[in-house]
Amino acid sequence: MNSYGNLFKVTLYGESHQSAIGVVIDGVLPGLKIDEDKIKDDLLKRKPGAIGTTTRLEKDAFKITSGVFNGYTTGSPVHITIENHDVRSKDYSSLKKHPRPGHADFVAYKKYGGFNDYRGGGRFSGRLTAALVCAGSIAKQMLPFKLNHELIQVGSLKDMSKMDEYLDQIAKENDSVGGIIKLSTEPLPIGLGEPNFNKLDGEIAKMLFSVPAVKGVEIGTGFSGIELKGSNFNDAIVDDTGKTKTNHSGGVSGGISNGNPLEIKVMVKPTSSIKKTQQTYHTDSKNVQDLTIKGRHDVCIARRVGIVLENMLAIVLADLWLLDRAKKPFSKT
Amino acid sequence: MNSYGNLFKVTLYGESHQSAIGVVIDGVLPGLKIDEDKIKDDLLKRKPGAIGTTTRLEKDAFKITSGVFNGYTTGSPVHITIENHDVRSKDYSSLKKHPRPGHADFVAYKKYGGFNDYRGGGRFSGRLTAALVCAGSIAKQMLPFKLNHELIQVGSLKDMSKMDEYLDQIAKENDSVGGIIKLSTEPLPIGLGEPNFNKLDGEIAKMLFSVPAVKGVEIGTGFSGIELKGSNFNDAIVDDTGKTKTNHSGGVSGGISNGNPLEIKVMVKPTSSIKKTQQTYHTDSKNVQDLTIKGRHDVCIARRVGIVLENMLAIVLADLWLLDRAKKPFSKT
Amino acid sequence: MNSYGNLFKVTLYGESHQSAIGVVIDGVLPGLKIDEDKIKDDLLKRKPGAIGTTTRLEKDAFKITSGVFNGYTTGSPVHITIENHDVRSKDYSSLKKHPRPGHADFVAYKKYGGFNDYRGGGRFSGRLTAALVCAGSIAKQMLPFKLNHELIQVGSLKDMSKMDEYLDQIAKENDSVGGIIKLSTEPLPIGLGEPNFNKLDGEIAKMLFSVPAVKGVEIGTGFSGIELKGSNFNDAIVDDTGKTKTNHSGGVSGGISNGNPLEIKVMVKPTSSIKKTQQTYHTDSKNVQDLTIKGRHDVCIARRVGIVLENMLAIVLADLWLLDRAKKPFSKT
Amino acid sequence: MNSYGNLFKVTLYGESHQSAIGVVIDGVLPGLKIDEDKIKDDLLKRKPGAIGTTTRLEKDAFKITSGVFNGYTTGSPVHITIENHDVRSKDYSSLKKHPRPGHADFVAYKKYGGFNDYRGGGRFSGRLTAALVCAGSIAKQMLPFKLNHELIQVGSLKDMSKMDEYLDQIAKENDSVGGIIKLSTEPLPIGLGEPNFNKLDGEIAKMLFSVPAVKGVEIGTGFSGIELKGSNFNDAIVDDTGKTKTNHSGGVSGGISNGNPLEIKVMVKPTSSIKKTQQTYHTDSKNVQDLTIKGRHDVCIARRVGIVLENMLAIVLADLWLLDRAKKPFSKT
Repeated sequence: MNSYGNLFKVTLYGESHQSAIGVVIDGVLPGLKIDEDKIKDDLLKRKPGAIGTTTRLEKDAFKITSGVFNGYTTGSPVHITIENHDVRSKDYSSLKKHPRPGHADFVAYKKYGGFNDYRGGGRFSGRLTAALVCAGSIAKQMLPFKLNHELIQVGSLKDMSKMDEYLDQIAKENDSVGGIIKLSTEPLPIGLGEPNFNKLDGEIAKMLFSVPAVKGVEIGTGFSGIELKGSNFNDAIVDDTGKTKTNHSGGVSGGISNGNPLEIKVMVKPTSSIKKTQQTYHTDSKNVQDLTIKGRHDVCIARRVGIVLENMLAIVLADLWLLDRAKKPFSKT
Repeated sequence: MNSYGNLFKVTLYGESHQSAIGVVIDGVLPGLKIDEDKIKDDLLKRKPGAIGTTTRLEKDAFKITSGVFNGYTTGSPVHITIENHDVRSKDYSSLKKHPRPGHADFVAYKKYGGFNDYRGGGRFSGRLTAALVCAGSIAKQMLPFKLNHELIQVGSLKDMSKMDEYLDQIAKENDSVGGIIKLSTEPLPIGLGEPNFNKLDGEIAKMLFSVPAVKGVEIGTGFSGIELKGSNFNDAIVDDTGKTKTNHSGGVSGGISNGNPLEIKVMVKPTSSIKKTQQTYHTDSKNVQDLTIKGRHDVCIARRVGIVLENMLAIVLADLWLLDRAKKPFSKT
Repeated sequence: MNSYGNLFKVTLYGESHQSAIGVVIDGVLPGLKIDEDKIKDDLLKRKPGAIGTTTRLEKDAFKITSGVFNGYTTGSPVHITIENHDVRSKDYSSLKKHPRPGHADFVAYKKYGGFNDYRGGGRFSGRLTAALVCAGSIAKQMLPFKLNHELIQVGSLKDMSKMDEYLDQIAKENDSVGGIIKLSTEPLPIGLGEPNFNKLDGEIAKMLFSVPAVKGVEIGTGFSGIELKGSNFNDAIVDDTGKTKTNHSGGVSGGISNGNPLEIKVMVKPTSSIKKTQQTYHTDSKNVQDLTIKGRHDVCIARRVGIVLENMLAIVLADLWLLDRAKKPFSKT
Repeated sequence: MNSYGNLFKVTLYGESHQSAIGVVIDGVLPGLKIDEDKIKDDLLKRKPGAIGTTTRLEKDAFKITSGVFNGYTTGSPVHITIENHDVRSKDYSSLKKHPRPGHADFVAYKKYGGFNDYRGGGRFSGRLTAALVCAGSIAKQMLPFKLNHELIQVGSLKDMSKMDEYLDQIAKENDSVGGIIKLSTEPLPIGLGEPNFNKLDGEIAKMLFSVPAVKGVEIGTGFSGIELKGSNFNDAIVDDTGKTKTNHSGGVSGGISNGNPLEIKVMVKPTSSIKKTQQTYHTDSKNVQDLTIKGRHDVCIARRVGIVLENMLAIVLADLWLLDRAKKPFSKT
């Protein structure tokens, strides 16, 4: 249940405050030159530091211990591990009995019979996305098209030039805000995705919801296109590459890439951990009572999550791209 | 690639104009009494007939050929088949070279090297959802909580009492509209879903995107909650069942059911097949030219798709519910 | 749990005395010409009639209801169904409480809480292999090399020219015997199989054990090579195609096809249902008591099972052959 | 392709001469007390040192970096890593062009386009089984019944008390021998295994073939029971626990555990790497020529592989045991 993919398969392990997190990437084609600097660059994009982001500063020094030889992939699983260092576990001990609203504390306690490692959110921590960023970075090195992400809204703010000022204000309120990230790609080859259950958009949605705090995914115009009629919504094809005049469908027809750029929007909720005191249930007192959260948290996780979403998208595309190689029509040879 | 699920596994086959469609449902627990009338009722909800729906009238007489004995499931896979009868295949032959905008005609042709059965949309037809409705209906008979769906918007119309009039007008315009469907459940048991890659919301999103025409999925407030701050968004827990004061998170925390009702919204695009003439590429002439679509189509598929979405949700929940049985904490017995 | 394969995926349903059995074959490449006569021929090889085989005579008329259009596969799942006709269900009712030795009657009753369809062995019946023969026959039409099977031993008899006489004698004793079947192929392309968990020999063994009555599988010399030393066992490579001087390894090195013919031996136990009276436990009397089995049964199922094993092997090879297409080393194009 | 299991899922990574090998174990129930000494004991059983075993001495110090907290499993994946230390990579460089008979050198080169890490056998090395031993050891701590292994034949020797003397002689001949290992268990609960494709015996066979050098697997009497007639082969049930008078079927009926002890025999071929000079193909000279293998190798790997096989069996049983929890018959509660 901690693996994703059929041919490009990612298996994730780790908990926020244990000794290491890591990922096994199975299915990377042999003979791919691995550029470790690209992985570092992607990890830097996820790093905190900007206004509105946490002060937990992990070195994020990843190590490849398997699957790369002389700079090229060998065809064996690539294993990447990242050690956990800047850990302050005592911050979290009280949360076991006074679960934070909006967090998984309560459900984790119930689901795992109290045996879960609750420190730092344990398995539910955004910390694990560092390993996924590495996996996605390798996926991007294999794919023949580019991916992008862009933060287009933060709370009620749509003018991104004013973000620092806006988040500064939210921080002063001891509060947090969510955001909307737009993902896009260069035009994909036609044919990625399978018509039932493994549709391109379905796999993308599943994967993006795997990122903590995601609460909505739409392909193309999505919900905001609800008032369009069919005659406006339909994307007319204009040439033999499948290029369409508009791209309301976001590059996906019938669950399959149609030769146009992917366009996806993702809604990320406000960070659950806020400094403002909240009223919520305590399992000992059996009453609702004041909770003040300590520890270091992002005011706006949406500011850092873009590269995670982009790289998760890359993992999905790598898997379907390999699948497409396997499924080319039959020919006698 | 035509299967969904780990423990409650659904495998779908069929094409719109071949002799039959069907579904193999693997993992139905032995000893479940099957009420065929409930399956019939669900199929009726999907049936056309109302204003804004197609005139293709299939009998939808399903037949269970395996896995049920003396009225109870045996533990073997349940196979349900539905024959195709009201088929007018000649309507579609011209579309092979003049693919419909918004449809999968073009990508199917490219992906399958021209070998796809293009009649009636083939494998991409909404017709296949009849089999999925049956599978979901059986899932619902196994689950200890109820599911619902509700159409809350059609095109620009939010007052559902005026739907007939509104769709009548769209039909006269030879056009189509989309809709938004809200899915909900009774409170789920805490613990359904797995924290990485098999999150409850991720699986739901994947599955709902498997339904033709779905272009957006959000859990809880979703995109419309973007302006809420954390202090408002967070759902405060009020008692030991995990009940929360608000339900902005839609019943899911950290990808796991939190004891509250699920709340999901799904955006369904306008039906692609419209009577209005459209301008789109023709593969013979190599030019954009007029396309007038014949055949029988829905003006607003959103009117019929609710039960499909509800039952797809049931399939996801059945799978995670069985998984939860397997994963209860260890005890020495 | 009723599916096999990653890319060429077979899903089986049916029980011996219900209305139909069938198989969904997902992953057949689009554009493959289907020769239905070859499927018929394979089904005939499985048919009873010879000395030592049952008198239950099913027509085995299979029907393809999906995935083939104008004689070619469409890329959609191929669904094949076979109706059950020559059914005598009353023969079996007493066996529910007096389970047959060597059969699954007892474990099925326990596992499924008494809800299993016990008639004719239900889901455990060899009847289901008819559907698998069809699936394997299609796999063979896709593969670029040929497969064979050969019965090399029946009970204590190794001279197959005397089989009729020998089995006649066993039948007169109201007893049954097992057999050993040898499977082989033309030289495979190098590279089928994955080094951990999806080894070529491991997948083959798993699949062959899926056939009722199989109790042993060996690749190459197997158990009978136990006295060979390494210097004799090792197969020296003689040219650049990987051809080896001997084939003790049966065509598999490190779990991967090595360019030589596959050679596999399968041990099939004696048919469990014998006419001779047996002493076994009765669940009502709570005592061991006489059991006399009625119904029509094979004296030597090994005589019919060869084509089943051959076609099961074809399913494994089709899956790994598709996987090999996906996994060719990386190249920039 | 480097993962095994549905609910108890093991993902393996590593190559013989890279920095580490490891395993991710997904599905260990939360709340299981982990006894690390038991893992150490199992690793010691695999250790070389006895006559006939290699002189490569790895410390095999494993480290658990995830999934265990305060001595109990958390419900998150358990990650175990083992560093590689005693590595002499230069021994292997010449083998790239002069592949060893009986080894995967040649097929690995071809399959991975020359990019494989050939040092020490790379991914095909028996070294990786150390990680699997750890995984199996944890599986055994979860299972409510015991497992055993026993070496019953080495080359032509059946009297195990004379093994040292016998292997000493083989070593002097610069040769190697195989062996037969018998695996057994305490009586299993009835019901483990699924009738089609995931049969208990099929899964066991697949898994045991995953261990390098295994060339044959039989359940119960297997090949040596070929001359038994049905009246002798059939195991008569004697009481309500399913206990049988004989156990020719090895504890498996219809692919499902029948309440009796499992009995399995595994044939392990002679170690491929021998000191004796062999004649085999050289890819540069394009001729068959003398090959003398350096490095440190086992004369009889069968002497060390028993614990690997036992623990692989435990992994299979853990997976099916969890599956059985999920699949108990339906009841309204």
